[in-house]
Amino acid sequence: MLTFPSDRNIMQQSGIIKGFSKLSRREKLTWLRKQVDLSDQTLELLDIHLHTDPQLQEIYEDISENTVSNYFLPMGLAPNFLINDELLTVPMVTEESSVVAAASHAARFWAISGGFHTEVTGTRKVGQVHFTWSGSEEGLRSAFNHIRAKLVQSVKPITGRMEQRGGGVDDVVIKTGGPGLPGSYHLLVTFQTANAMGANFINSVLEAMAGNFTSMLDETGLDGEVEIIMSILSNYTPECLATCHVEADTAIFNQLSHMTGDKFAHKFKLAVDIAEHDTRRAVTHNKGIFNGMDAVIMATGNDFRAVEACGHAYASKSGRYGSLSRVELSGNIFRFSLEVPMAVGTVGGLTGTHPLAGASLDILGNPSAEKLMQVIAAAGMATNFSAVRSLITTGIQHGHMKMHLGNILRQLKASSRETSEATSHFRNRAVSYQKVVSFLNSIRDQNERK
Amino acid sequence: MLTFPSDRNIMQQSGIIKGFSKLSRREKLTWLRKQVDLSDQTLELLDIHLHTDPQLQEIYEDISENTVSNYFLPMGLAPNFLINDELLTVPMVTEESSVVAAASHAARFWAISGGFHTEVTGTRKVGQVHFTWSGSEEGLRSAFNHIRAKLVQSVKPITGRMEQRGGGVDDVVIKTGGPGLPGSYHLLVTFQTANAMGANFINSVLEAMAGNFTSMLDETGLDGEVEIIMSILSNYTPECLATCHVEADTAIFNQLSHMTGDKFAHKFKLAVDIAEHDTRRAVTHNKGIFNGMDAVIMATGNDFRAVEACGHAYASKSGRYGSLSRVELSGNIFRFSLEVPMAVGTVGGLTGTHPLAGASLDILGNPSAEKLMQVIAAAGMATNFSAVRSLITTGIQHGHMKMHLGNILRQLKASSRETSEATSHFRNRAVSYQKVVSFLNSIRDQNERK
Repeated sequence: MLTFPSDRNIMQQSGIIKGFSKLSRREKLTWLRKQVDLSDQTLELLDIHLHTDPQLQEIYEDISENTVSNYFLPMGLAPNFLINDELLTVPMVTEESSVVAAASHAARFWAISGGFHTEVTGTRKVGQVHFTWSGSEEGLRSAFNHIRAKLVQSVKPITGRMEQRGGGVDDVVIKTGGPGLPGSYHLLVTFQTANAMGANFINSVLEAMAGNFTSMLDETGLDGEVEIIMSILSNYTPECLATCHVEADTAIFNQLSHMTGDKFAHKFKLAVDIAEHDTRRAVTHNKGIFNGMDAVIMATGNDFRAVEACGHAYASKSGRYGSLSRVELSGNIFRFSLEVPMAVGTVGGLTGTHPLAGASLDILGNPSAEKLMQVIAAAGMATNFSAVRSLITTGIQHGHMKMHLGNILRQLKASSRETSEATSHFRNRAVSYQKVVSFLNSIRDQNERK
Repeated sequence: MLTFPSDRNIMQQSGIIKGFSKLSRREKLTWLRKQVDLSDQTLELLDIHLHTDPQLQEIYEDISENTVSNYFLPMGLAPNFLINDELLTVPMVTEESSVVAAASHAARFWAISGGFHTEVTGTRKVGQVHFTWSGSEEGLRSAFNHIRAKLVQSVKPITGRMEQRGGGVDDVVIKTGGPGLPGSYHLLVTFQTANAMGANFINSVLEAMAGNFTSMLDETGLDGEVEIIMSILSNYTPECLATCHVEADTAIFNQLSHMTGDKFAHKFKLAVDIAEHDTRRAVTHNKGIFNGMDAVIMATGNDFRAVEACGHAYASKSGRYGSLSRVELSGNIFRFSLEVPMAVGTVGGLTGTHPLAGASLDILGNPSAEKLMQVIAAAGMATNFSAVRSLITTGIQHGHMKMHLGNILRQLKASSRETSEATSHFRNRAVSYQKVVSFLNSIRDQNERK
């Protein structure tokens, strides 16, 4: 199985390409066509998704590398988000059907029942400079205490502009790698990054700090060797946290299903409690929260992988992966809350270069990063509420199937009369493309015979 | 803070809209404009991102709800993925710069060093029917054993077609909710879903099974009340698992940096070990794996939230959130491996309706779901390898800054001479838009003076 360097020349002749990134788009596709048996339709699809405005197209091409087309995702609006008494329309980008509808339904329901109450309880970001140290831990700690202030001072040329915007380095402490990693340590650096997500800023500061730390430690003459392993932000930001809750009398649920509001509230609480106790359920429960969150994160040009990694790790912080949301019921007062850490920005990065990320921020009234965190949390709570509500009443398939049926009927250009007949026929039947085709054919046959 | 139903009428007059989804796109935007002070540019951007082909546009609009535009993401190609001796070009969709470049670099490096070795060790999906039972647990278990086979039989009308494709219901067992949830149980149903992700299939089967279970249990005459709480697939699929590894003599790393290959390998292993022991590092480490995975998941029309939730919960399965990848070094043999559960499909869902998802699958040679799982795992390992490699050598900012500089120079229409001067000037300096503008102005001034 092993291939050694001497084999490299041989393998280079077998379809491995060097300098692919330097080819033009057309050359890339010509090369691809030699490698793979592509359909004409695929090549045409790649072409017809390019933007006709060359300047816009260039912007999209520069976002990533080796780009050959634009991948389209529907951008939708979820109106009626009443968040801390302000009514917002939330832009959402998702490939999953029902998510925007679910968010909109929940938003409207809660808008007329007090709205979402959100808060940011912290905005601290973190980064780490991992290193090994061959000397004693006590010596290291004592030397660190001496150079700590000078170390923070040494990165001022990079932090100056961020400080003007209200951010900068908060603190630096030293941490050991623990018993599993003898001789391994890291500087844990905490930051404020104002309205930026801050990844570039944090990484630049950490890399500069790593170099300065090495030379400063060296200058102390302390016995030991330091080696920097890596300097990198952490996407785990439990101290950069948004909370959201809704609260109301259970009577507001009276009309939601055949259950009384009180019964609905108890069943809803049990469903959320199950997610707290059962990892298999918790994963899907939290996935439903991220359905709403990620759609706003995408729409505003933020990085959903960072928020996903952070949020799911946070869900496992007790040692068992559980639900990010919870329900409290005291008497007839129902309170549904969500606590989720995230690092997002409204300036810098893609938020400034992706034209539609800019449009999304405009739709949201050009919010601060803190406000965006709260909107994202509310969107997550909205899709979570709708999912649990469906699950404990009609079942999740009911809404999906209704939407699925609608899409198929549109594709088949069903008339409004056919649509109404099909809707009633499939009310309690499983929907598939083939079944809808058969049903339409049968009613069309009948009508012809008439 | 509480708002009761009687307040509803009042609140409905304050910008809360009913029936938004029924408005046309133009009406939605007109309404939005009354709510928010939108710039003309935002409205124009929403318009100019619609597809000029009305049929294609309709497809994108039907994917989600309340759609007003298409969100563009660059679709790129990462060539040179040698996976189990087959060379593939991998389509990737991501908004993050450097991800496709990182995947491509790692793919090429490993293609000439033996390639990625991948495997699917299981394809089992799961779903749950949660219910409460007021009677005795023993009675329930005994009754369940009697009706179990009949219960599986009862959903045959729905599972028939999936069985023809090699899938179906594998097994049903009964589980208690544990000490935290007295009287709470669930049916744990395991499935095979062939090349489909299977969400719709699983949910339909579970909902049917829930109804049948209730009536069958009732018919046994057993003392107790059953109430279905919810029927839903679990996105946590630890038994639907892909593995990937690369393995080579450490000599292959000799040319990668100023370090010897052996030193590189040890430093790489330490960096991955740190991610295993330190949650703050693990989150970012795994995020780097998902950078590659999600880009393929998006390109092929799969659901990245499902895979993210599953993968991160899996990373916490020991009780402490840790790395999904690991390194073993024995002598001079370096082995880097990744184990990640995921549920993805290559038929059904969006894979069949999103035109560019179809194009991506075509580029991959129209793979089975199992093969796609392996490609996704390899893409994750590739971005992970590149990230750790950068971190332990030049630092992560080096490549980012080079790319950032290139983008700014392109935006500023720098000549090739200016580009070369700027590249050399910024080799060891932090890059910002303003600094590049100043630098270009200064060399342009100088040239004018000459």
